[in-house]
Amino acid sequence: MAGGDTKKSNAKASSGGKKKEVKKETGLGITNRKDDNFGEWYSEVVVNAELIEYYDISGCYILRPWAMSIWEIMQTFFDAEIKKMNIQNCYFPLFVSPGVLQKEKDHVEGFAPEVAWVTKSGESDLEVPIAIRPTSETVMYPYYSKWIRGHRDLPLKLNQWCNVVRWEFSNPTPFIRSREFLWQEGHTAFATKAEAEAEVLDILELYRRIYEEFLAIPVVKGKKSELEKFAGGLYTTSVEAFIPNNGRGIQGATSHCLGQNFAKMFEINFEDEKGEKGMVWQNSWAYSTRTIGVMVMVHGDDKGLVLPPKVASVQVIVIPVPYKDADTKGIFDACSATVDALSEAGIRAKADFRDNYSPGWKYSNWEMKGVPLRIEIGPKDLANNQVRAVRRDNSSKIDIPRASLVEQVKEMLDKIQHSLFDVAKQKREACLQTVNTWDEFVEALGQRKLILAPWCDEEEVEKDVKARTKGEMGAAKSLCSPFDQPELPEGTKCFASGKPAKKWTYWGRSY
Amino acid sequence: MAGGDTKKSNAKASSGGKKKEVKKETGLGITNRKDDNFGEWYSEVVVNAELIEYYDISGCYILRPWAMSIWEIMQTFFDAEIKKMNIQNCYFPLFVSPGVLQKEKDHVEGFAPEVAWVTKSGESDLEVPIAIRPTSETVMYPYYSKWIRGHRDLPLKLNQWCNVVRWEFSNPTPFIRSREFLWQEGHTAFATKAEAEAEVLDILELYRRIYEEFLAIPVVKGKKSELEKFAGGLYTTSVEAFIPNNGRGIQGATSHCLGQNFAKMFEINFEDEKGEKGMVWQNSWAYSTRTIGVMVMVHGDDKGLVLPPKVASVQVIVIPVPYKDADTKGIFDACSATVDALSEAGIRAKADFRDNYSPGWKYSNWEMKGVPLRIEIGPKDLANNQVRAVRRDNSSKIDIPRASLVEQVKEMLDKIQHSLFDVAKQKREACLQTVNTWDEFVEALGQRKLILAPWCDEEEVEKDVKARTKGEMGAAKSLCSPFDQPELPEGTKCFASGKPAKKWTYWGRSY
Repeated sequence: MAGGDTKKSNAKASSGGKKKEVKKETGLGITNRKDDNFGEWYSEVVVNAELIEYYDISGCYILRPWAMSIWEIMQTFFDAEIKKMNIQNCYFPLFVSPGVLQKEKDHVEGFAPEVAWVTKSGESDLEVPIAIRPTSETVMYPYYSKWIRGHRDLPLKLNQWCNVVRWEFSNPTPFIRSREFLWQEGHTAFATKAEAEAEVLDILELYRRIYEEFLAIPVVKGKKSELEKFAGGLYTTSVEAFIPNNGRGIQGATSHCLGQNFAKMFEINFEDEKGEKGMVWQNSWAYSTRTIGVMVMVHGDDKGLVLPPKVASVQVIVIPVPYKDADTKGIFDACSATVDALSEAGIRAKADFRDNYSPGWKYSNWEMKGVPLRIEIGPKDLANNQVRAVRRDNSSKIDIPRASLVEQVKEMLDKIQHSLFDVAKQKREACLQTVNTWDEFVEALGQRKLILAPWCDEEEVEKDVKARTKGEMGAAKSLCSPFDQPELPEGTKCFASGKPAKKWTYWGRSY
Repeated sequence: MAGGDTKKSNAKASSGGKKKEVKKETGLGITNRKDDNFGEWYSEVVVNAELIEYYDISGCYILRPWAMSIWEIMQTFFDAEIKKMNIQNCYFPLFVSPGVLQKEKDHVEGFAPEVAWVTKSGESDLEVPIAIRPTSETVMYPYYSKWIRGHRDLPLKLNQWCNVVRWEFSNPTPFIRSREFLWQEGHTAFATKAEAEAEVLDILELYRRIYEEFLAIPVVKGKKSELEKFAGGLYTTSVEAFIPNNGRGIQGATSHCLGQNFAKMFEINFEDEKGEKGMVWQNSWAYSTRTIGVMVMVHGDDKGLVLPPKVASVQVIVIPVPYKDADTKGIFDACSATVDALSEAGIRAKADFRDNYSPGWKYSNWEMKGVPLRIEIGPKDLANNQVRAVRRDNSSKIDIPRASLVEQVKEMLDKIQHSLFDVAKQKREACLQTVNTWDEFVEALGQRKLILAPWCDEEEVEKDVKARTKGEMGAAKSLCSPFDQPELPEGTKCFASGKPAKKWTYWGRSY
């Protein structure tokens, strides 16, 4: 609980300032500023907005209802989309026997150092230690081999929603890097490479939609380098996000074409229409609760969390503002009627009728929790048959006549969703730097830019870039080669090796 | 994979008989009869109906899409219901540190022998071994203590959908007793005992609905004995099902009132409205994938699985029956149109157009998978503008004019749902035996009855009953004291101790 306690004492140690009144009442409030102390700010927001509670095992976190509801909204979308693609849900065991785990050499090398092992039950030692899944390729594929016999068994398209464990020791961060996390993992097998490759992109497009349409975060679709691809796979595509505050790229979700490598190791063969033996082409793809962390980092501000309306479990918080001698009952009734009208229209609205907090405290509290729109109803609003609406993202205020309430609130929520995306995109663009030489690269890296550079696409050169940029803040690496490639003039040279460049690639430090 | 291989060789060793033709084509079919060899029959059905695949770690099973879809349908219902009760979803870590696990003495004694321990990550030993949750009371309650300060923080009502691990060594059985399983676990805290007790029953009612309305399985609501209650709790209520074929009771789901015992250990205190310190009242409640196993056992028959329509991911399977020289295209079009019409009406329908299987093979295949209603369309049906509908549960056939298709199919599905429940209830009633003496009890137990007996409600007496009935098939124990108590005439004596009886209680062997 060290982490949790740290947070708590940070809050207590706060010197106050603008939010002093709030803190007096609650001991809460955000004390670190996003621009000054990004890491501490992040830890404070995820705890104070009640997304996360730190847990007494390092690297494990409690996902509180405020976080879980975001996860569930994305899950509902994604699950429905993959079902349209005839992908079926299933559930494979948490445990892996060492034999199958070690079957694919590159794959096990990639994951082995992070695997947690069960060696005891009760007081007894197990005969053979059993691994906890870090991902389920080796859990599932022995059964794909059993289930797939002929071309009629293909495609086989399964997905599972589950927890996985990667016992990492580097710098655990809530949502972003945790030892246990929730995700979906899809595992599909096809008769042909073409089908597999088409699916890789269909899934990647769903990931883009989760980030851009739901979380209002701009991402780049592209292909990972050989060094950064999934261990044991053929190639990896990803959506890459960027955190302007610390200049770090972050892998948002990955859609891997595994090729036939696992099929070979696990003997996943089939008889084709002509009676000839073939080997399947496989994909695997996943997104995780990391998405929520990226959202916090991109949109949050010094007042706390900022939720895009599409993933907010409360989109509108209605707060009564009963001045002395005002018609309190009238105001409360108007608040209830407002919630009812909005709820009926499918808007997720809630009133805060708590009688032990002032309206001002409630404003701050719901701002910290990131609710996109606040509606205040006071005596003047009651008299004028209107409500006051305040946007979380830019604090702009507007009076809305009761007659057009639903319509205008809908419109505002839409605007907030789009505006969050636009602002995030502008901030990212402002960090984008195209470089052509090593010197420019080093300078841009120092300025925490998202760097686009022409590259020779050689593994040794990427290793060299990593070695030459090693330091306290971590080495630079390739993020992805965007599918959307700018023109590469003939004769362009690699920024790092001077060899002929083959493609434009994003580089930077990353999570 | 020992288990899986056993199943496979059973199927291969089949001598055929009535289903010979099917087996020739597929190597599948159910070879054990439910009445002759119940255990083997069950293993065969769950594998051949593609609910389960045996896994290479004993006691772990793969939930295939056909099982997962049943789980998801129940989950959708239950999740919506608890949300109406303002219970929120969250996710706590898989891992528990030994300190908190051991905090509640009775509780840890109940679970300790089955706890799986992680002691290594990669090649390194962990400083302290870490347990995998067998249930999450001790995972969650330290944080309840942190989050609950005053009466305004109550009630706190959380639920999570997750996996848990109980490394049992006795006789693993798919769904029924597995080392890892999926469940929901609700954990709630209230200011008063009355609120907690009301919720215990509200949740139990949802569990009854899952069994009776969704799975078409009659259950008894009641209270567990002191010996059988949840370790560390105040009292346990449950819904109890019964498997006529082997005369075993099975605990369907449990809703525990934990009282203030955990609150005391974990110091979950609050200040009430008068500023006085109180201790919370807690509940925990869960149902698991075991539900699916009970469904298979109760409804399945010698042709395989029988799915109640409400949990069937395919409620109607439409099969073209194109005799030689028939209008094949017309038949296929009629099948498609039928699926479309049913789907539009919200019925889960699917056509089987596979061209490498005969209609007869398809009938058997979908019967094995338990689809509630089969629709056949042949030349005669096409000519008469009708379809033939065949019920899975009782094989009855009826011709339905296309004009009233949707209406009649809906009606039939309803009938099947109710008929499955009625038949299951009749079978259970036929096994019910009321006894008054030890001799009658022993005789009824030998006849594998569900035994209702007057009991003195003393723990020592239950221990004695267990000791006296020990044997190959396992000892008898109390299942529950039904809420719905028959009259207990004054002077009635306990069947086992001869002391004055306090209540009627169900007894029997159980899973």
